[in-house]
Amino acid sequence: MLVQNGFSQDHPNLILTKQGVKDIKSQLGKVPLFDATLAQVKADVDAQILEGIDVPIPKDMAGGYTHTRHKLNYLTMQEAGVLYQILGDEKYAIYVRDMLNEYAKIYKGLPRHPQERSYARGKLFWQALNDSNWLVYTSQAYDCIYTFLSKKEVKYLEKELFKPMADFLSIDTPQFFNRIHNHSTWGNVAVGMIGLVMDDDVLIDRALYGIKGLKLDAGKDNDGGDIFVEGQKAGFLANLEEPFSPDGYYTEGPYYQRYAMYPFMIFAEALQNVRPETKPFEYKNGVLLKGVDALLNLTDKNGDFFALNDSQKGMSYYSGSLVSAVDIAYFYGKKDPALLSIAKEQGRVQLDQTGLAVAMDIRDGKAKPFDKKSILLTDGAKGDEGAVGILRSTKQDALTLVMKNAAQGLSHGHYDKLSYSLFHEGNEVLQDYGLARFVNIEQKNGGGYLKENKTWAKQTIAHNTIIQDETSHFNGDYDTGSKHHSDMYVFNVENPDIQIVSAKEKNAYPGTLLQRTMVMLNHSDFEQPVVLDLMQVNSDKKHQFDLPFYYLGQVISTNFDYKKEETLHTLGKSHGYQHLWKEGEGTSTSGDAALTFRNNNTFYTITTTVSDKDHLIFGRIGANDPEYNLRPDPVLIVRKIQTQLYLPRS
Amino acid sequence: MLVQNGFSQDHPNLILTKQGVKDIKSQLGKVPLFDATLAQVKADVDAQILEGIDVPIPKDMAGGYTHTRHKLNYLTMQEAGVLYQILGDEKYAIYVRDMLNEYAKIYKGLPRHPQERSYARGKLFWQALNDSNWLVYTSQAYDCIYTFLSKKEVKYLEKELFKPMADFLSIDTPQFFNRIHNHSTWGNVAVGMIGLVMDDDVLIDRALYGIKGLKLDAGKDNDGGDIFVEGQKAGFLANLEEPFSPDGYYTEGPYYQRYAMYPFMIFAEALQNVRPETKPFEYKNGVLLKGVDALLNLTDKNGDFFALNDSQKGMSYYSGSLVSAVDIAYFYGKKDPALLSIAKEQGRVQLDQTGLAVAMDIRDGKAKPFDKKSILLTDGAKGDEGAVGILRSTKQDALTLVMKNAAQGLSHGHYDKLSYSLFHEGNEVLQDYGLARFVNIEQKNGGGYLKENKTWAKQTIAHNTIIQDETSHFNGDYDTGSKHHSDMYVFNVENPDIQIVSAKEKNAYPGTLLQRTMVMLNHSDFEQPVVLDLMQVNSDKKHQFDLPFYYLGQVISTNFDYKKEETLHTLGKSHGYQHLWKEGEGTSTSGDAALTFRNNNTFYTITTTVSDKDHLIFGRIGANDPEYNLRPDPVLIVRKIQTQLYLPRS
Repeated sequence: MLVQNGFSQDHPNLILTKQGVKDIKSQLGKVPLFDATLAQVKADVDAQILEGIDVPIPKDMAGGYTHTRHKLNYLTMQEAGVLYQILGDEKYAIYVRDMLNEYAKIYKGLPRHPQERSYARGKLFWQALNDSNWLVYTSQAYDCIYTFLSKKEVKYLEKELFKPMADFLSIDTPQFFNRIHNHSTWGNVAVGMIGLVMDDDVLIDRALYGIKGLKLDAGKDNDGGDIFVEGQKAGFLANLEEPFSPDGYYTEGPYYQRYAMYPFMIFAEALQNVRPETKPFEYKNGVLLKGVDALLNLTDKNGDFFALNDSQKGMSYYSGSLVSAVDIAYFYGKKDPALLSIAKEQGRVQLDQTGLAVAMDIRDGKAKPFDKKSILLTDGAKGDEGAVGILRSTKQDALTLVMKNAAQGLSHGHYDKLSYSLFHEGNEVLQDYGLARFVNIEQKNGGGYLKENKTWAKQTIAHNTIIQDETSHFNGDYDTGSKHHSDMYVFNVENPDIQIVSAKEKNAYPGTLLQRTMVMLNHSDFEQPVVLDLMQVNSDKKHQFDLPFYYLGQVISTNFDYKKEETLHTLGKSHGYQHLWKEGEGTSTSGDAALTFRNNNTFYTITTTVSDKDHLIFGRIGANDPEYNLRPDPVLIVRKIQTQLYLPRS
Repeated sequence: MLVQNGFSQDHPNLILTKQGVKDIKSQLGKVPLFDATLAQVKADVDAQILEGIDVPIPKDMAGGYTHTRHKLNYLTMQEAGVLYQILGDEKYAIYVRDMLNEYAKIYKGLPRHPQERSYARGKLFWQALNDSNWLVYTSQAYDCIYTFLSKKEVKYLEKELFKPMADFLSIDTPQFFNRIHNHSTWGNVAVGMIGLVMDDDVLIDRALYGIKGLKLDAGKDNDGGDIFVEGQKAGFLANLEEPFSPDGYYTEGPYYQRYAMYPFMIFAEALQNVRPETKPFEYKNGVLLKGVDALLNLTDKNGDFFALNDSQKGMSYYSGSLVSAVDIAYFYGKKDPALLSIAKEQGRVQLDQTGLAVAMDIRDGKAKPFDKKSILLTDGAKGDEGAVGILRSTKQDALTLVMKNAAQGLSHGHYDKLSYSLFHEGNEVLQDYGLARFVNIEQKNGGGYLKENKTWAKQTIAHNTIIQDETSHFNGDYDTGSKHHSDMYVFNVENPDIQIVSAKEKNAYPGTLLQRTMVMLNHSDFEQPVVLDLMQVNSDKKHQFDLPFYYLGQVISTNFDYKKEETLHTLGKSHGYQHLWKEGEGTSTSGDAALTFRNNNTFYTITTTVSDKDHLIFGRIGANDPEYNLRPDPVLIVRKIQTQLYLPRS
């Protein structure tokens, strides 16, 4: 390896370290998983180098060419930087240097991105968020080729590109930078990472603690989230402090926890390397390491994250951000051998000392199974704002119940207190709809959230929980919802054959107390575990109550008669009901209503106690959906009309 | 091995032979795939033996207990017989003997099955068809333990069980036995197999040539098929002669070819062993061996059979009947090494000399890939009744087009001349709906065909082909449809970049000539192959024409405007239209209409030339479906109203 000049010998020190590089080089060819990852990354980067550098003037939404190209650029630069360090081939450093120069040439002259949809537009991308992604990755590339650059080149890049970008993402875009939100985390980390490489205390301080003394007009972001809350702390540490519960649950939900986990973990690694006195992995009783563990527990048998709040289905711990998170957690945590089995499944490692350690220990047979257990993950900074309860049958993954008794979840929250979803062997059989968005598909609103996310996906009726008078919890009002959270009543999984989660919700409907108790029961009468679902409602007046079951599969049989409609009308006018077709209705005179459906060659039965006055409504999602943004999934709704329960209020 | 008495030393000779058993024993432990299959079968049978024998009085429909039990009984007896021969452990012979005695005790006294739905009820099962399944398997078990039985036991079983059953399935149920139909094939083979074991020439003759001099009242079976056609030959050889084309295509379609392939192949093997002078594998120029090859070509990348006519989706060459068929075809055919790669995928072999040969040759590395190529499979006994054309892009399995230009397909045929389905990498993206039936699910009409099979699945509108005046081809009339077939015009796949299939249909609508030409085209402008679809219609009057595209996936975008309906009505009143909801409609003024949809993370676009007078109708299956028997899949229909094309008639 040729070092062109000697003004700084301290790089790389951000993610890769000099010792790390030395260790990696000494092990090359001896660690299968690391070697395989390296070979794959090399093949990808070599192909990109052959294709040549393109730094287009930004213009497209997500999914469009310029968006995709700039994204590929930062990913490739990060990898090329790593290859330069590990393989010592200058072509990788040259590639990064030349591309950075292209960016430096245009950066200061670029206006904000021409697509005006975001509350915080970037320059390279339509959102400052994506510009932050760029800087988080590119900081690593810059660190890796730092010693390859001349002093003049360093000064040029920092003056024309990195410092202006860091300021742009913070000082110039405070509504993005100074919040408690995954967006801000990315912004904080972007500024912090480049600050560490540049050894710029101002930037590092800003990253850790936010912009001081800032006064912002109140307002909402594109998702309806509060941008500025009086007295709110900001910066990386505040974003670590507030949205994470002591159990490591991130209040926005697992999908965004996955997304935020990369900046959280990579910056923690960088701080650990460059400013170890900050002790990032010990912060808040080691909440970052707990967060990785929590996130891995928030998955089904296939490793797919539960679709709580705004969640894109199918996102799993195979995603790149979790590869990094698992490797970093292994290395800086207690070397938990269960993490190795996840890394093994992931099939690749981060190309640094953490990934090396993981790959070596896998090679040496140290992996142990990651046993997902029944677990309660509290919500709220202090762990006192409800919780997500996960029950798993003892026959591992045969049945998994996820019950959401948590707080609002910031701007990505849905209005579905005491809701649940149910999985069998990795198949979701009673579903949480997730978000209404086609991520990175430009034709669908530029890949952004669709209006049906608000009118349908966030509404209570889109979930497996109770709805009073066809009105969403908290009347679907974000400010009201954000003031409250459900309260845990019982979580007891000591007896694996009778596992219980129970919670109360007293604010979703003023005057009405909701309590739901769910029991996962093994009983000798049943081959498979069964779930008991006890929904208790105490109300001070008569109301209509709807309890939907979003079964996924085909109707096989019912124990009650129903009649399908000859023309289909919507089930209601608002609060999501306008998106449901009413397909049919029945009643049961036997005291219970049972629906058997088939999913993936397995049969499931929902049996619910009903009176002969209750309406059993078959519905399907898809009404008032002018652009086919919704999935046409089915639902069975048990409706009680003019009902008041007189149980004493607790 | 103990032979209790010596009155016959010629058994086993039906499927397993004495030499075969000797060869197998000499190879035990040396042939991985054979050994693995044997271990699995032993585990299954041992578990059944522990569970004990149960021969319940028949009462249930398919999927019910007695049905499932009797089915498990014959499968287990067949396997136990094989284990007795291979392993020499008498417990297997005793199990078969004792179970056969239980059957013999009750058989003659049993009335026809109490479920009265079938045109040909069995005794053990609701259909004589299933009784025939029983006898085909049980004959093999009987042959395997024949030498273990005393003369008295043999006489008892033949007198009380086998002879009466053979007569019951033939003489007593001629409407079942004496047809050209997969049902009759099973009946013929059942009688023939037991005839071979019993060395009963009368039964063997009846199996091969049918019941002589029979006069039956004309009538239809449950599927609407003709039971008796004047001058029609019957028996195994006629069933081999007529429904198979010279290319080995079975006119009912691949789903039933799969089902019939087991009796065809197993009886051919038995004849080859016991009556080699019949030369079954040479019959009709080796049509049986060609049939196996044809069937393997009628599958997508995953090995799933194309859903032509009445077909249950998801049935594949992994099914047991294809394991036997592939092994037998390998052994008695030209030892085609491509069959070995299929057997390898199947992961098990038939436990006889054919499976042994396959497993040994796989072990010895002789397998070669089975390359599915573009292929034309003619229909009709003489190959002159149209054909099924399969185009595969040269990038194997990237794109597969299946075009149906064949004959009616007997009682399992659908009214969909010139229709097609399209697959990409094993995903069906333009679908053939297949059948409307839940096989073996008792809750759904006892596992039998649903009424929606006739009102929906067989109708032309359920397929990707043209419909005139909302009326099915041949007015949906079976007798008319059975008189005609489409005619091939071109099938040319010499140039892999321009593959063409073209066919004409002049009888579906009197006065209207239909011709459809489909081209699979590789062009440097496209990364993937594209399909050109030229539908030409010459009619003597003005008509309405509908051309549906049953795209599977989610709408991503269109290049035309459309409006979704606020209430949903059915698209029509009959011929299947009553099962379609009309979801929306649009028009295009640009001269073409393009729909982009997403399936399995891949994007597909259908572009069709239209005038601004054409209606672009979005529909969904599921109307008039009182019991949720249909899948709610989407369709785009291009409708031309009051159209007459004046191209000269050819």
